[in-house]
Amino acid sequence: MSVEEGTANHGRLLATVRGPQDVKRMTAEQLDILAAEIRDFLIAKVSRTGGHVGPNLGVVELTLAMHRVFDSPRDRLLFDTGHQSYVHKVLTGRQEGFDKLRQRGGLSGYPSQAESEHDLIENSHASTALSYADGLAKAYALRGEKRSVVAVVGDGALTGGMCWEALNNIATAGNPLVIVVNDNGRSYSPTIGGLADHLSSLRLNPGYEKVLDTVKDALGNTPFVGKPMYEVLHAVKKGIKDAVAPQAMFEDLGIKYVGPVDGHDVGAVESALRAAKNFGGPVIVHAVTRKGYGYRPAEEDEADCLHGPGAFDIETGKLVAAPSVKWTNVFADELVAIADERPDVVGITAAMAEPTGIATLARKYPERVYDVGIAEQHAATSAAGLAMGGLHPVVAVYATFLNRAFDQVLLDVAMHRLPVTFVLDRAGITGPDGPSHYGIWDMSVFGVVPGLRIAAPRDSASLREELREAVAVDDGPTIVRFPTGTVAADLPAVRRVGQVDVLTESARTDVLLVAVGSFAALGMEVASRLAEHGYGVTVVDPRWVRPVPAELVELAAGHRLVVTVEDGVRVGGVGDALGQAMRDADVRVPLKDLGVPADWHPHGTRAQILADLGLTAQDVARDVTGWISGLDAQPVEPTAADGAHAQN
Amino acid sequence: MSVEEGTANHGRLLATVRGPQDVKRMTAEQLDILAAEIRDFLIAKVSRTGGHVGPNLGVVELTLAMHRVFDSPRDRLLFDTGHQSYVHKVLTGRQEGFDKLRQRGGLSGYPSQAESEHDLIENSHASTALSYADGLAKAYALRGEKRSVVAVVGDGALTGGMCWEALNNIATAGNPLVIVVNDNGRSYSPTIGGLADHLSSLRLNPGYEKVLDTVKDALGNTPFVGKPMYEVLHAVKKGIKDAVAPQAMFEDLGIKYVGPVDGHDVGAVESALRAAKNFGGPVIVHAVTRKGYGYRPAEEDEADCLHGPGAFDIETGKLVAAPSVKWTNVFADELVAIADERPDVVGITAAMAEPTGIATLARKYPERVYDVGIAEQHAATSAAGLAMGGLHPVVAVYATFLNRAFDQVLLDVAMHRLPVTFVLDRAGITGPDGPSHYGIWDMSVFGVVPGLRIAAPRDSASLREELREAVAVDDGPTIVRFPTGTVAADLPAVRRVGQVDVLTESARTDVLLVAVGSFAALGMEVASRLAEHGYGVTVVDPRWVRPVPAELVELAAGHRLVVTVEDGVRVGGVGDALGQAMRDADVRVPLKDLGVPADWHPHGTRAQILADLGLTAQDVARDVTGWISGLDAQPVEPTAADGAHAQN
Repeated sequence: MSVEEGTANHGRLLATVRGPQDVKRMTAEQLDILAAEIRDFLIAKVSRTGGHVGPNLGVVELTLAMHRVFDSPRDRLLFDTGHQSYVHKVLTGRQEGFDKLRQRGGLSGYPSQAESEHDLIENSHASTALSYADGLAKAYALRGEKRSVVAVVGDGALTGGMCWEALNNIATAGNPLVIVVNDNGRSYSPTIGGLADHLSSLRLNPGYEKVLDTVKDALGNTPFVGKPMYEVLHAVKKGIKDAVAPQAMFEDLGIKYVGPVDGHDVGAVESALRAAKNFGGPVIVHAVTRKGYGYRPAEEDEADCLHGPGAFDIETGKLVAAPSVKWTNVFADELVAIADERPDVVGITAAMAEPTGIATLARKYPERVYDVGIAEQHAATSAAGLAMGGLHPVVAVYATFLNRAFDQVLLDVAMHRLPVTFVLDRAGITGPDGPSHYGIWDMSVFGVVPGLRIAAPRDSASLREELREAVAVDDGPTIVRFPTGTVAADLPAVRRVGQVDVLTESARTDVLLVAVGSFAALGMEVASRLAEHGYGVTVVDPRWVRPVPAELVELAAGHRLVVTVEDGVRVGGVGDALGQAMRDADVRVPLKDLGVPADWHPHGTRAQILADLGLTAQDVARDVTGWISGLDAQPVEPTAADGAHAQN
Repeated sequence: MSVEEGTANHGRLLATVRGPQDVKRMTAEQLDILAAEIRDFLIAKVSRTGGHVGPNLGVVELTLAMHRVFDSPRDRLLFDTGHQSYVHKVLTGRQEGFDKLRQRGGLSGYPSQAESEHDLIENSHASTALSYADGLAKAYALRGEKRSVVAVVGDGALTGGMCWEALNNIATAGNPLVIVVNDNGRSYSPTIGGLADHLSSLRLNPGYEKVLDTVKDALGNTPFVGKPMYEVLHAVKKGIKDAVAPQAMFEDLGIKYVGPVDGHDVGAVESALRAAKNFGGPVIVHAVTRKGYGYRPAEEDEADCLHGPGAFDIETGKLVAAPSVKWTNVFADELVAIADERPDVVGITAAMAEPTGIATLARKYPERVYDVGIAEQHAATSAAGLAMGGLHPVVAVYATFLNRAFDQVLLDVAMHRLPVTFVLDRAGITGPDGPSHYGIWDMSVFGVVPGLRIAAPRDSASLREELREAVAVDDGPTIVRFPTGTVAADLPAVRRVGQVDVLTESARTDVLLVAVGSFAALGMEVASRLAEHGYGVTVVDPRWVRPVPAELVELAAGHRLVVTVEDGVRVGGVGDALGQAMRDADVRVPLKDLGVPADWHPHGTRAQILADLGLTAQDVARDVTGWISGLDAQPVEPTAADGAHAQN
């Protein structure tokens, strides 16, 4: 029986769920069936669209219990790192939306206020939910509103400093508030840190062991995917709650602790949540869950439990996408090559060893890679310490997450002129993860940091080369940033002017097109389209976009129009910086800077979003043709027009 | 006997200290005398120059013990929030420098690598030292170097999330490392949070009470200021160590705990540090100290223990500066007036209630002010929660510290379009605190945030008005930013164009001078100087600098030259943003944008640093005269010149 049939035959109960009230009415037996149907549903849907399957399979019972005990949207359910909100979406009237999950115009992969009154936090960055919860609870207390606030946070997210700040404040305020720690013993990668060790020891203590020893194949008789295809590694005895002594660490902070409770037992979680709801102060409910629970390929995927894959084969869990060379792989391999030669080069990741490729280095040199947990601030400042100690750290992080450590990069790293290289994966428009995952801010925000150099490679060869140049810098920090996905075909330069690669040029010097990073190929196509109209375009890749290369200003002075195109926000971007440099040099050639408007762009594929923004070769060629022909109609006297190497 | 005489008579031992080795040789009796002499010295010097006296009086014995047990600079002594490093400076050959403490060309108020090989962390932002320490310890472990790493961190700084991130990593790594918690029970303001409550309970437990009960007037017989002018509120019995049981919370994390130990007993601290040094893993030494210890005016200053005053009178501790109306006071008073009318307006501070003026609101409406500790991330995101709960939070913070919460302002506040007002005190060039305190980044960095509006008031009246406008915005965040010090005299507008105030204009429209915020007065003087040369200058205050007012672009189109001047970095600044807006509107009037170069500017007075940067009226007038006469010599055709209201 296929999953399709399974869903068709056994999704009847799920089909009756139009909102949380339908879940509240169910019996324990119905809930077991519903949980299995939800797993069927999620696996069937997400295997086609791609999405975060593992984290959501782990919170099925947890989410059911929350919606039974609390009254959303009056009570506020907050999901930290919102990719664990699929079950919540299923239960709040959005089942139909899953056919277009994370697709343009379809359901967001995160909570979305536009989708539902049951959603609040749209941000996908971890460790924030407790801070929102503290604010909400304070607001309701001040306004005299009786509403419960419930925040679900993973054990991995607890390694983020914001959670510590929030816990201190929640404890002091003393407002009623329920914190559900969804403890699966791993965040993206196995969670590190003293806290994790402590939670582990708690999981392993005799009281909790007793819970696990009472094995019950709770799901064996349910119609999940039609057969008991999983091993009950984590089976549980129902109804046991508070079997283990409260956890000293949270109690030390003044927060009531309940748990550990089996997170795959709806009844057990319900009991704990009801106790917490009625306590009258802040309570932590420690629920132990298993990422990917009930779907063997996800449970057995030690690397990341199908954390956030693309479309996958249901039987095997293998991704269906054709293999291709990703930017991440090129970086990972070259970093190992560099590390082979340079024993002082070490790697840092913030709980993303596999997705950032730093795991490749860790496999060869485990003692030279530090996984700091979901803790970008510490990643940056401990890198400063490593550099002070004579090493050259390479911090591999998604572009959007480095924003977490702006102050640390500015003052702890750059002010001390320390050689730390930040490698920003998923820079620019990323796609299905939507606005909070777009890596479009880095060149503007980190562009203000004195002494920080930023490289934007265009292809494999330039990524390898610029990474080596970055690691060779010994008097300050560097950033190497590249987009998500498959790396572009190598695009050799015709010559190099200073640090700037000239990709193509013509006898006519009408337009200087500065194509940043992966937009090099677009630049080449624009040049060829403009050539058809008789215009000569010089396409350059500045390679290092900060500081602005002096050669770029000189090249600008030798053309009638300068156009920049970049995969980042326009405000304060590469084009903007070139504009300032041209003003300073009194180069009055007209400049047009193309890039991403600073706004909240929706999810979709990268190609769709770029097309929406007019950042295709066709669009840019049309724009440039319009501008240059406008100049022909209304000639403006350039300040210097004596060739490509003009000094101004 | 005056303090001068006291220093002259009794500073003999101190005068023999040229480096740490001289401290290592001393007997216990000599150390007591030396400690008293150091207090005399600091009070005498800092009363004249201004500086952080309270925190340093609290760490005299701690620092002496550190330099006796460890071997700096081979061993690394890291001072979190570097303003507690004065004693360290005194002991490492820098006594002469204190006559010019925090003055241009003189000693920095923080550690400085340029000053001494004994200094490492120059950043003044709190909660970073443990992360550096983790990195350094890892580097020494990997390189096989036997060097101790010692970090001193205040109990207040422990409320910052970075410390939590670092503690988790330090515990996991297990490298030898000594963390000295300097626990004076208060950071800037009394420390809040569950951690603080826990430390308090520890301080109050029977074992520790016994320490305090054994009162000994340890300093009574020493020549401190010539007389026992203080009450021994915090006197101690020497030699007691580890009298109280280890602290469960740190042990839970896997870090050995030693303490609490009396931080004003050199011998006791030494014993603890020696034990920690030889432990072979991470150790926390919990030292209880008293801020301002040994100087009654500082001890009794409940508001902030003379945390970081200007020059003060030695006998009374009162500041000697003439009273004047500060920007902070204008904000504080207006906020109370707004809160009187608007019950939904609440205040947030990150452990800076007095310095930011939010204490004024707290005195009237204590239940409407939240002090979150040194936790800017939580300040921003809990403000988001408060706003989601129907309130309008006003977060008052130094400009330099909001950088800590860039990601939270971007995604947690702005992406949710939440009405939160951030009030940035000490924006722009601040002066004596040097580069890590300069608030010069905000307009560039937060200028990229979609939907965020930024106001830069020029005087009292505009600060009051723009604060009211900010709090009236209900669909997104706002920033109101102003500099340090005395507020400028009110400068009324001659008229308002849209949101832009025209401060002066003339029949000739040669130059549009956009004077941001407090540079309005400078702008007026420049206009009057240029009038002497026959040039007509329109001076405008944009009031709201982000988004760029459309009226500004229109005004620009009606002049021959546009000049902007701002108290922030040029890159991505207001001038730069206007340049982009002019490009977008095809306004080709030449633009010159003046501001602060993105660099690490030294300490000095605000006036000195601005003069160094050429940001005086005289400098700007000369620059503008040069530019406009250059245009006369080589006329450029403006795209539109049909008056001040020209549309382009």
